[in-house]
Amino acid sequence: MSEVNNAFEHAKKWIQEAGAQIREQMNQPFEINTKKDHTDLVTEIDKNTEEFFIHKIKEHFPHHQVMGEEGVGEEVTSLDGTVWIIDPIDGTLNFVHQRRFFAISIGIYVDGEGLYGLIYDVMEDSLYIGIKGKGAYKNGERLAAINQERTLEDALIGINNFWAIPNKRLDETKIHELVRKVKGTRSYGSAALEFAFIAEGIIDAYITMRLAPWDIAAGKILVEEVGGITTKVDGSEIDMLNGNPVLCSNKAIHQSLLTFIKEK
Amino acid sequence: MSEVNNAFEHAKKWIQEAGAQIREQMNQPFEINTKKDHTDLVTEIDKNTEEFFIHKIKEHFPHHQVMGEEGVGEEVTSLDGTVWIIDPIDGTLNFVHQRRFFAISIGIYVDGEGLYGLIYDVMEDSLYIGIKGKGAYKNGERLAAINQERTLEDALIGINNFWAIPNKRLDETKIHELVRKVKGTRSYGSAALEFAFIAEGIIDAYITMRLAPWDIAAGKILVEEVGGITTKVDGSEIDMLNGNPVLCSNKAIHQSLLTFIKEK
Repeated sequence: MSEVNNAFEHAKKWIQEAGAQIREQMNQPFEINTKKDHTDLVTEIDKNTEEFFIHKIKEHFPHHQVMGEEGVGEEVTSLDGTVWIIDPIDGTLNFVHQRRFFAISIGIYVDGEGLYGLIYDVMEDSLYIGIKGKGAYKNGERLAAINQERTLEDALIGINNFWAIPNKRLDETKIHELVRKVKGTRSYGSAALEFAFIAEGIIDAYITMRLAPWDIAAGKILVEEVGGITTKVDGSEIDMLNGNPVLCSNKAIHQSLLTFIKEK
Repeated sequence: MSEVNNAFEHAKKWIQEAGAQIREQMNQPFEINTKKDHTDLVTEIDKNTEEFFIHKIKEHFPHHQVMGEEGVGEEVTSLDGTVWIIDPIDGTLNFVHQRRFFAISIGIYVDGEGLYGLIYDVMEDSLYIGIKGKGAYKNGERLAAINQERTLEDALIGINNFWAIPNKRLDETKIHELVRKVKGTRSYGSAALEFAFIAEGIIDAYITMRLAPWDIAAGKILVEEVGGITTKVDGSEIDMLNGNPVLCSNKAIHQSLLTFIKEK
């Protein structure tokens, strides 16, 4: 077994262990701190989960780098070598408010190439896995290729209201056109799960204007393995070291969707 | 056992039977017809499920009235006596596109008063029940009263993008203010499930501009039993014989929410 394959096998085990610990702690009170703004919450569990991964990774793979939301690990400035890109709790607001609809997200990248993506829907106990060149899976069952015949008129799009009202990042009038054109829109509040939903065909696209690498790292691999594509909203490649405005969708509607997203 | 209590006991059994039948049929191809517009789909299963209920009700309770989405039953012009208000599949677009996140909804009303509300999340196999004066339950466990201390700033609101972009029914600029004020918005695509989510505290309010009685009948009872309230968006009472623009929320934020909804 190659070392990175070994890392993946550990990741599968650890992500489920961490999820089980979170489920246990869900009934205990926990402290909530606020980060940048009132929708951006950090919890003790969030930090503890990231520390759990860093501890495990450093113990087994001391020369791997770890990039994580909580910044418990070192600062990662290059994607050389093996890098774990981790969001210990994706969908923090759902986590705090709903106590469900959140996920742990882990991407394993080697020299900038995404090899393994794991998204664990903790309360559903559902594990999504994408393996570069070897398909996408949910709880061990291979996911079908997504429908490339889907038209925009038939599509369900994941997009938050925030990008449909006047905002600083994009031209909302183009989004109004889009909302009128598509079959419908949905908003679930967890980027990792919206990627997973695209891989499953639950939604056909996801548009959002500010995702960190750890929000994207696993989902991008997962979606690619069922024939989808993830880019910045200008169509350019995702920068896995910085924040990105993101469009993820099946390939059939990706080009059309790009025409509805005009950054300010 | 009173007759209406007997009806409720049958409803509990039938709704789970119908759900099991739907889960079985999900893997078979089914015909899709279009109704009024492209988001309003009718499926064979939808019709079959309504027929299942009407057949059962007429067999056991021949003098009860049945109001249903598919109009398979008679036209109901009065709420006198016992009326079953049924949506065989609430969230038809989710049903067709996602094959999950839809529900069967049944309200049992006597002389206009809602006594029993049942919402069955078919794919999750979760049954929500509201019993007038006796509480709300999920899978037999009593649901806690919803948080009446919740402020608007701390609230998650269920509202579709459609009502946040320029539209014929309400002043979207007020909705923009609302989206900026609240903690976040979500959109799940099933009215019955959004009522259930309010009862569970998953979201704190739900705003939508066009619901039929069968979308509301069960959810209204469920939400009242945990201390919530459902009205038209001008604050007036729901008309259970006609379509309604709906605001459902906990009582603490209901008045504040009304100020953000201005019908055109």
